Amino acid sequence: MIESSTESPPLDRVRERTGGRSARIRADVLAAVREELLADGYGRLAYRAVAQRAGVDPATVYRRWPSRPQLVVDALRELVERPQPSPPDTGSVADDLGAFLDGVLAELTDPTWLALFRAYALAGAEDGSLGSPWTVWEDRLGAAQVMVTRAIERGELPVHCDPQAVIEHLVAPGYFRALVSSQPIEPGFATRCVRYALAAARC
Amino acid sequence: MIESSTESPPLDRVRERTGGRSARIRADVLAAVREELLADGYGRLAYRAVAQRAGVDPATVYRRWPSRPQLVVDALRELVERPQPSPPDTGSVADDLGAFLDGVLAELTDPTWLALFRAYALAGAEDGSLGSPWTVWEDRLGAAQVMVTRAIERGELPVHCDPQAVIEHLVAPGYFRALVSSQPIEPGFATRCVRYALAAARC
Repeated sequence: MIESSTESPPLDRVRERTGGRSARIRADVLAAVREELLADGYGRLAYRAVAQRAGVDPATVYRRWPSRPQLVVDALRELVERPQPSPPDTGSVADDLGAFLDGVLAELTDPTWLALFRAYALAGAEDGSLGSPWTVWEDRLGAAQVMVTRAIERGELPVHCDPQAVIEHLVAPGYFRALVSSQPIEPGFATRCVRYALAAARC
Repeated sequence: MIESSTESPPLDRVRERTGGRSARIRADVLAAVREELLADGYGRLAYRAVAQRAGVDPATVYRRWPSRPQLVVDALRELVERPQPSPPDTGSVADDLGAFLDGVLAELTDPTWLALFRAYALAGAEDGSLGSPWTVWEDRLGAAQVMVTRAIERGELPVHCDPQAVIEHLVAPGYFRALVSSQPIEPGFATRCVRYALAAARC
């Protein structure tokens, strides 16, 4: 059934429509940023190419994201802020940490995520006004701490262990390899990271 | 005493001179790259600005370093390949690792090193032909493994522990904070990293 009316639509309807178009442009531009980063890297990221890929006017991109770091930060945040699966809850902290780390390493070996993480680390450093990149990591790693707190409650880990530190030490070597050293991640790497993180949690 | 001669200089003398000038230009350009990275970041690194700062013609820079990643990779390698102090040898593995990590964290909180590490991680990713960034890290972290092997020989650490893995787990959280998450490094961070690495070495 098609509504017909000669009246102007009510204000909230207009807002919704504007919001809808605005949100669509935003999503298209940020997806284009991710594709451009993957194709050419942050060093060559160009407004014109992003606008062309998104099918919008370059001026629209400039107006909303006056700097390249802002573009990159929004492009990662949009991905990261999507609802995440809950951390594993198998009843065994070793299995929980292993399954969680597998997910992290899968992201870190995905070219799009990798290009975005790299550009994000750099963009955040170049434009301090965007807020610390840490806010994104805090959310992601913060959610994972529940695996450690549940293990403490079950008596699997000592009460004095620090959930934030344990998660950080679990994932840091993977990020170091993927984003810093480019050393390949060999079979057995994840198992060793879990074993080391648990030894740290118990020390 | 001034040598005087109307003869042409012998060939090795010419070579040395050419090498001297060439080496000087190289050093000037790579120093200029580091200064530009510090001032403006990798995203805005421009050949013209590098050439101007180094006092050479832009064509000279283009000829030797046809891509920005090549410039950045050479600028870091030149620094990294300078003779490093030997890893600490105090007779206690905890003290050795602590002193070594202090040096790593001092680099990671130095703006020039940080800008260079960031750009290097990105540049290596953008231009695979430059060889893996891992070669640089392999040298740096490889040299540090002697602290662990000496501790094994002294009986401080078990023979089954993996020196490379222990060093990687020791430094990875610092690199993660400095280059990826931008989380500040608080007092006590280094102490915890050493404690965790030793627990890992003994597990």
